[in-house]
Parts: sequence; C-alpha cells; structure tokens
Amino acid sequence: MTEEPTTAHRPDGRRLRGERTRAAALDAVVALASVDGLSGVSLARLADELGVSKSGLFAHWRDKEQLQLDAVERARRMWIDEVCRPALAEPRGVRRLWAAHQARMDFYLAERLPGGCFFAAVLAEFGDRPGPVRDRITEAIAAWLAFLARLAAEAVAEGQLRPGTDVEQLAFEIDALGLAAVTNSRVMDRSVLTVRCRRAVLDRLRAHCTDPSLLQEEPA
Amino acid sequence: MTEEPTTAHRPDGRRLRGERTRAAALDAVVALASVDGLSGVSLARLADELGVSKSGLFAHWRDKEQLQLDAVERARRMWIDEVCRPALAEPRGVRRLWAAHQARMDFYLAERLPGGCFFAAVLAEFGDRPGPVRDRITEAIAAWLAFLARLAAEAVAEGQLRPGTDVEQLAFEIDALGLAAVTNSRVMDRSVLTVRCRRAVLDRLRAHCTDPSLLQEEPA
Repeated sequence: MTEEPTTAHRPDGRRLRGERTRAAALDAVVALASVDGLSGVSLARLADELGVSKSGLFAHWRDKEQLQLDAVERARRMWIDEVCRPALAEPRGVRRLWAAHQARMDFYLAERLPGGCFFAAVLAEFGDRPGPVRDRITEAIAAWLAFLARLAAEAVAEGQLRPGTDVEQLAFEIDALGLAAVTNSRVMDRSVLTVRCRRAVLDRLRAHCTDPSLLQEEPA
Repeated sequence: MTEEPTTAHRPDGRRLRGERTRAAALDAVVALASVDGLSGVSLARLADELGVSKSGLFAHWRDKEQLQLDAVERARRMWIDEVCRPALAEPRGVRRLWAAHQARMDFYLAERLPGGCFFAAVLAEFGDRPGPVRDRITEAIAAWLAFLARLAAEAVAEGQLRPGTDVEQLAFEIDALGLAAVTNSRVMDRSVLTVRCRRAVLDRLRAHCTDPSLLQEEPA
C-alpha cells in the first residue's frame, strides 16, 4: 500500500480499486464455497486465488466470520439479480411462478457457480453451527420460499391457480424439486435430471391451474 | 497388542474384539460424516472418539480411502436394514411404496444419525471428486432410486397405480421430497417440514392411484 495520496483524484481511484478487489474477492469466495463450503475459504487461499496480497484482503475483512457474512450477502444478491429478477419480467400469474423455477434451473444449467448452488453447499455445512452465518443463510432461504409463495398467491389472485391453493405447500414442493436437481446433478445425468424436474414442477402447477392451457407443453 | 495366544479360544476372542472395534469404528465414522462429511474423519480423531489406540484402528485401515469406502458400505447396509426392510414387510403395492418413504422419514425424525443423513452429507462433498468413494456413493443412491421405482412398478402390476405410470419419474419425485426434508431440517421447523413432505408425497401417490381409498387420510 502507498501513502495517502495528495491529489483530488487518487482517493477515488484508490477506493474504486479497493471496491473492485472486495467484489472480486467475494465473487471468488461464493464460487469456491459452492464447491467445498465456506469453512475451507481462508484469506490466505483467497489471496493465492486472486493473485493479491493477504494484507490487501485483510484491510477488508478483519476476521473470517465477516468474510463469510459478506459472502452470504453477495450470493443472495446474485440469486435476486439472476433468478428472482428475470421471473418478475413475466406478468403476474402462474407463468411468473414457472419462470422463477426455470430461472433457477437455468442458473444451474449455465454452471454460473462451479459447484452449482452456494446455498445448497453451505446449508449442509452450517446447519449444525448456530451463529450469525447460519442465521443469514436461513434468512436467505426463507426469503426465497416466501418469494415463491408470493408469486403463487399472485397467481391465485389472478384467478390462474384455484382458490384455496396452499401457496406455502406449493412453494415448498417447487423448491424441493429445484434442490433435488442441484444436489443430484453431481451423481445423475444432467439432461435426464432437467427433464424430470421440469416435468414434476409443470405437473404440480397444472394440477392447481384453473386453465391448464396457461402452461402449454414446450419442448424440453 | 499381546503376542499370538497359544490356546484354542484366544484367537476367536481376539478376532471378535477386533470385529467389534471395526464395527464400532465404522458406526462412529458414519455418524460423524452425517454432520461434517467424510473428509474430516481421520484415524486420529476416530481413536479419540472411541477411546482406543490409533494403532488398533490402523490394523483395520491402512489408508483413509479404505476407511471411507467401508463407511459408505456400512451406511448403505444401515439404510437397507432400517429403511428398505421395514417397507418390504408391507404387502406389494402402493402402501409398500408409501411405507418406504415413511420409513425414511422415521429414520430422520428418530435422529438415527446426528446429521440426519449420511448420503445427503457426502453427496455434496464427493460430487466433484471422481474416484472409488464417489462411485460407491453414486451406486448406493442409484440403488435407492431403483428400489423406489421397483416398488412403484409392483404397484402398477397390482393394478393399484394406473397403467403407464412413469415409475422412474415417481421415484425421482418421492426421493426429491425426502431429500428436501432432510436438507431443510437444519433451517426449517421439523414438524412443519414433516407435514409438508408427507402431504406432497401422498398427493403424488393419490394422483396415480386407481383407488384413492388405498391411501386413506391418517393423522399427520
């Protein structure tokens, strides 16, 4: 690190560099954690991975827990931007709910993260470790289930899903199939898995639809 | 270790003791791995856990990979004895298939393993590590899915599930819900989870049943 610069521009440049390093570091942590979990990610390993000095990273994170908390936040933001937001581009109703599940499957199929899913990887890891990291992971998963339930409730309000549909139950089932898709992707053929998962969710949605033609058969 | 004994009885006693140690060690590995995965289980940690000498364990396992392979085999045997076998006590048909899922849920609810499920824990861990341990895990999971599909095929043959039911698809969906139950049990209320999972599987089975009264509503 250089001394405090004296010109007006340098502080911004330096802060920007610092922010870029921070963002790049968090992206790397999220990617690594999707494969091996968060516990194995140290500042030393991260510095190696990014080709920066450990002291540069230490300026951002004084301890491993803060790094883990920031990584959970980064993964949650990624999920909102790349899974929730594309679904919201669809009009309210059953197709928006279907789009949310599809966006999740696309996220997995595109191998956006090397291990498939940050949250599936860290869920097992922190499930038995009470503390703030586990709390944030739990909140993020609850928010995703609530998002799916809200889209289902909108579809009921639009008259596209039958009145009285248990939207929390439906959200749970759609999420379970997405979770099974990413978990099994490591031991089952991905194309078979995608077809099975797609068909299972379409079947669930059609069973509750007032007009099954809202979800037309599409080529898998 | 004592010198080779000279009486006729001692070799049996010694072998029995050795087998008991081996069995106890594998049970401990399966339990530990259900929480943290197999990678963190070393002979040293195991010796500590069991209060035996590391050299005593070393007589059974010359390397960590063999210990991991034997643990997978032990977990598979436990699953067959405690999940598959109780289901086979039911007559062939849809109730046997339902019993298999119920036995799995009972296994989780009884906290038979501290982390819930050995296979769910090691699946994430070894998914990206090709080798014999991953192969055995994959085989065990494929065997479970094939078991569920076979029970579904029996139910079709008995005329209890509709002809043309895609038994592999049904097996996949039942398994997905069981997997979601154990994975989410770390971050969701277990009683809610059990009710949701039970209802989802009953709904799936009833949708394919020729006679829905075969699966009567039971108190959750």
